[in-house]
Amino acid sequence: MSLLEDLNWRHAVKAFKPNETVSQENIDKIVEAARLAPTSSGLQPFRLLVVEDQDIKNKLVKGALNPECMQECSHVLIFAGWKDYSEQKIDEVYDMTTDKRGLPRGRFSSYTDQLKAYVGSKSAEENFEHIARQAYIAMGLALAQAAELKVDSCPAEGFSTDLVDEVLELDKLGLKSIALIYVGVADPERDWVGSMAKVRLPTEDFVINY
Amino acid sequence: MSLLEDLNWRHAVKAFKPNETVSQENIDKIVEAARLAPTSSGLQPFRLLVVEDQDIKNKLVKGALNPECMQECSHVLIFAGWKDYSEQKIDEVYDMTTDKRGLPRGRFSSYTDQLKAYVGSKSAEENFEHIARQAYIAMGLALAQAAELKVDSCPAEGFSTDLVDEVLELDKLGLKSIALIYVGVADPERDWVGSMAKVRLPTEDFVINY
Repeated sequence: MSLLEDLNWRHAVKAFKPNETVSQENIDKIVEAARLAPTSSGLQPFRLLVVEDQDIKNKLVKGALNPECMQECSHVLIFAGWKDYSEQKIDEVYDMTTDKRGLPRGRFSSYTDQLKAYVGSKSAEENFEHIARQAYIAMGLALAQAAELKVDSCPAEGFSTDLVDEVLELDKLGLKSIALIYVGVADPERDWVGSMAKVRLPTEDFVINY
Repeated sequence: MSLLEDLNWRHAVKAFKPNETVSQENIDKIVEAARLAPTSSGLQPFRLLVVEDQDIKNKLVKGALNPECMQECSHVLIFAGWKDYSEQKIDEVYDMTTDKRGLPRGRFSSYTDQLKAYVGSKSAEENFEHIARQAYIAMGLALAQAAELKVDSCPAEGFSTDLVDEVLELDKLGLKSIALIYVGVADPERDWVGSMAKVRLPTEDFVINY
């Protein structure tokens, strides 16, 4: 199937069958799509937290807008971003890049110097917003990968980022949660949106040609 | 090819062949992937501006970090978001949704009332950040669609949003530019990144399992 067929197939699942799990092979492919996502300056300023442990999911239920999804899905994929950019993080990424390409470290220093000056001129809050935007590219690709595999999913912002950060001790990792995807097996009896038509703005209203 | 193969194939193209164009059929599919992107509460709070006109591209060159890409690509796809949420916009989307699903208008009013109260409690700047995040999901899917079609592309934030807003008169449409994708035919002689290995964080560093 094509990507467009996959995107037409998927919808934001509102209820999952408890006790049904998505295979590790499929989770790995969804993670891989997120890992391959392009990011600004190639920094990949976020990590993907894969929560399968039921006790942890139960702890996160309280802050969730869809508590049943949190409790009954197979895996919760949480995108968590760097709290801020830093010169050290930029150097780590570019040292990895030059090492893997067989180039001398510092090969891109004129670019990274500009980048460091730019992010240094922004507040941590402004930088975190930029970091969060990058994670959404990866979220889109993870959802597309789930759809290609016919794995049911639901992207969600309706959760307590504070609670997630606390339960997963993200502060210790220098991360803050951004958004998540519930992955699992849809329960067609309770997934009320599954039988409804997908609604999108008509193309002629969505596109403006110049 | 699978999505993962497509994502491994693609890279951020640094130079395009001038005078080579991407077919309208392929542009339409890339636009369609962005149109089908999931968005928070289904609001689709952005539009996709497709710039093929060379005079307009020339006007946008000044603000571009990669001026050659702006000038030489086939199409510039610009994501532009609502300046803010509003009760009227939310009603328009939900009226469209209920109409297309054959449901009475107001069927989701308990949800939209909460949504209106929530976005009403936020500043225009906060809401615009949320809107921008949604556009990045669609940007990811548009890039994936280009890759499936073996259409060369480069996502970019390095441009003057003020200049784009002015040249395309986005203020009249209640929109502000967010990010863009250059689409075209790569020039392998000048696209210096094309021959280099794709570098991503190793999976074991990207994923944290719970």
